[in-house]
Amino acid sequence: MFSKETYVSRRAELRKLVKSGIVILFGNNDSPVNYPSNSYYPFRQDSSFLYYFGLNRDGLVGVIDIDEGTETLVGNDIDIEDIVWFGSVNSVKDMAESVGVANTAPMKSLQIICNNALKQKRPIHFLPPYRYDTKLQIFDLLGIHPNQQKEAASLELIKAVVKMRSTKEPQEIAEIEDACSIGYKMHTTAMRLTKPGFTEKFIGGQVDGTAHSYGAMVSFATIFTQHGEIMHGTPSWDVLESGRLALCDSGAENRNNYCSDNTRTYPVNGKFTQRQREIYSIVEACHDYVLDVAKPGVKWYDVHMAVCRLMTDKLKEIGLMKGDTEEAVRAGAHAMFLPHGLGHMMGMDVHDMEGLGQNYVGFDDEIQPSTQFGTNCLRMGRRLEKGFVVTDEPGIYFIPALIDDWKSQGLHKDFINYEMLETYKDFGGIRIEDDLLITDDGCRFLGTERIPYHPDDVEEFMRNN
Amino acid sequence: MFSKETYVSRRAELRKLVKSGIVILFGNNDSPVNYPSNSYYPFRQDSSFLYYFGLNRDGLVGVIDIDEGTETLVGNDIDIEDIVWFGSVNSVKDMAESVGVANTAPMKSLQIICNNALKQKRPIHFLPPYRYDTKLQIFDLLGIHPNQQKEAASLELIKAVVKMRSTKEPQEIAEIEDACSIGYKMHTTAMRLTKPGFTEKFIGGQVDGTAHSYGAMVSFATIFTQHGEIMHGTPSWDVLESGRLALCDSGAENRNNYCSDNTRTYPVNGKFTQRQREIYSIVEACHDYVLDVAKPGVKWYDVHMAVCRLMTDKLKEIGLMKGDTEEAVRAGAHAMFLPHGLGHMMGMDVHDMEGLGQNYVGFDDEIQPSTQFGTNCLRMGRRLEKGFVVTDEPGIYFIPALIDDWKSQGLHKDFINYEMLETYKDFGGIRIEDDLLITDDGCRFLGTERIPYHPDDVEEFMRNN
Repeated sequence: MFSKETYVSRRAELRKLVKSGIVILFGNNDSPVNYPSNSYYPFRQDSSFLYYFGLNRDGLVGVIDIDEGTETLVGNDIDIEDIVWFGSVNSVKDMAESVGVANTAPMKSLQIICNNALKQKRPIHFLPPYRYDTKLQIFDLLGIHPNQQKEAASLELIKAVVKMRSTKEPQEIAEIEDACSIGYKMHTTAMRLTKPGFTEKFIGGQVDGTAHSYGAMVSFATIFTQHGEIMHGTPSWDVLESGRLALCDSGAENRNNYCSDNTRTYPVNGKFTQRQREIYSIVEACHDYVLDVAKPGVKWYDVHMAVCRLMTDKLKEIGLMKGDTEEAVRAGAHAMFLPHGLGHMMGMDVHDMEGLGQNYVGFDDEIQPSTQFGTNCLRMGRRLEKGFVVTDEPGIYFIPALIDDWKSQGLHKDFINYEMLETYKDFGGIRIEDDLLITDDGCRFLGTERIPYHPDDVEEFMRNN
Repeated sequence: MFSKETYVSRRAELRKLVKSGIVILFGNNDSPVNYPSNSYYPFRQDSSFLYYFGLNRDGLVGVIDIDEGTETLVGNDIDIEDIVWFGSVNSVKDMAESVGVANTAPMKSLQIICNNALKQKRPIHFLPPYRYDTKLQIFDLLGIHPNQQKEAASLELIKAVVKMRSTKEPQEIAEIEDACSIGYKMHTTAMRLTKPGFTEKFIGGQVDGTAHSYGAMVSFATIFTQHGEIMHGTPSWDVLESGRLALCDSGAENRNNYCSDNTRTYPVNGKFTQRQREIYSIVEACHDYVLDVAKPGVKWYDVHMAVCRLMTDKLKEIGLMKGDTEEAVRAGAHAMFLPHGLGHMMGMDVHDMEGLGQNYVGFDDEIQPSTQFGTNCLRMGRRLEKGFVVTDEPGIYFIPALIDDWKSQGLHKDFINYEMLETYKDFGGIRIEDDLLITDDGCRFLGTERIPYHPDDVEEFMRNN
């Protein structure tokens, strides 16, 4: 949690940007798992609520009446039976005071606030809800069916929040660095434990445990798999086998809810085969290339496309692709190997602000999202600005189902060497990912300790640990 | 997952018990965390859906038309883009076949099924929903507002499910034993790591990691705390201090979603003080007493009350309580020290079937829940039957807020020695918990390896590990 002044001035800026009406920022509630009170899903506050109100407790709503110039923290105090079960907590009044909010009100008053605003026909600004309890709350408060709420959300509010949250303050960058240092522990734990005979599940579980030990939680479901070609492959009960690659894509959310997100791919037995090293080096070159070109003013879309061309060039060198590079990439043939985007915004959400709508977060009037397979998964295209944090995560995958699908359709057969590709169906996938801070005139990776990724460093680390 | 025949015969039995109408069992969906697609909350299927349909995937609904004698698995198949991201999965048809369900239908057909049944005025049986997406789904399908759904849920279906799930089959007991063996690893990991200087957070995180490594997940949010007097104390950033007690209440959910639930309390520095051992021994005696008396036909309510009397007797011996034991317990004075119930049903849910309504699961016409503070938290009162699994978890707590509250009201001052109690405000709390299977003529603890709990065993384990 930052200083009271931070939240006061963020809300003041928000009021200026949204100009008029009432802003309602819904905090999150506990998430039931298998019965109403079993919240073993750890509580996660809404990121925008955290950004403006800083309070990490369930059952709160922040109301900003821009016209009246008032701010109210809405929530119920707890009683002695709650104290027995959950311990003492601060009163709603104390919590409001700690973030410079003058007024408090019990939850039942939210309906009155909404009814009054509706009667006066004043605009009520809310963000697109993503949790179903919030959707129900909005339905009951405002009579808007959940299916219509995304459209009914306030564009002014979305744009103001995106504008503010996109550029990370120095104190936010320090939090991301902290998350990266937990991420370092998570990844090196996985690298240390990876050996033939363990299950993916075992290593993935130890990675999670490291996140839980040092931070709030994982920033997304840990990926630890010998099937790197499945983008979101969750750890299975399969046993690690010598000769295969293990891909670990995982990140921490630190105690102040800032994220890290890294990927490493390494040989289960600690030593790359020739073929693995060949493909790995292409991914490595693409990953490192971004460091040289990302800076304020550059379109992230252009960086993505340049990486696709570099990858195509290098895949041509080893014979997996062929034909004209420009044409191949324009046609989308490279997406056989890289079917996702180069990277996404990162902050309090690992895909930062994704819930507000990717089109507002990653794109603008100048740069619109693509509809082509592969490039349509690029979550961010717009020009970089100082203070943006984006992930740099190229990968090369050999996806048997996709190979069969495209081959049977004869897709991009002028650019893809399907005969050779057939022999890679048992390869898996490689991704290397780090978190990039855009600086005054360039960029740098976040995290003081670098998780090893140059192939010799990886082999050395695995030999010595 | 059990055999196809298991699910076929469970559904046949359910049809017999419910007799007529249409049964709709909603499977769970992914749970969004901080934006729609960020499901770092691990997927958890609904337990009753698992019990009757056995399928551990999101986006499924099971429909049993009792009148027509048909069964349908409702769900959508996935396409190539999903395969790229999440890997291949079985088709809905294959999944249905694997659990002996003859028909499948896409999700959109559920509305048609419901509309037809409503038109024909046939009873539609559903269980009380606890997730908000399910509540919304029921609202859209049947037009029942979420606030009315608990009342609109089918009593016939609830009673049939409770009847069947209460008595554990031998294959279910084997799964609980498996969960207990993961629980053993979790608890001994915590005991091994507990030393002055570590944070509660660190140990709690390692416990979680152990669950994630060997099983599906934790069966509830891990409690690891020096403030055992807070019933649901989540691990804080506080550093463990020599002289204090650490309480660990945690359990595993194994890969087939069966639970364990144990509690141990031990000295941070590995050695009990005289005062700690005194209180600990009372809890231990209460815990062990249950083993001697729990058996088919005995009311769990009576066992709870007997434990309260035993505890009162022993607290009188050391001077913390006074007066007539019977009167003290009847008045509820013991709840100062034991403000919760002796134990609850356990199975696929750690509080088994709690979502179906505690009154149907733990009570019946013969035994109704109490409203007295403390005893009102007893989740189970009815007569034990062979095959029931219940937790045995007495505890003694010194809760400063409760002491102040009762003392200022002069509550139970004939039974409580407040002067002496004041000196225990820094004590914390002790709980010992194991999982009890009711057998033919008695009971036994589940779990092949016992987590040490006799004070000498605890000290020996901590000395040697």
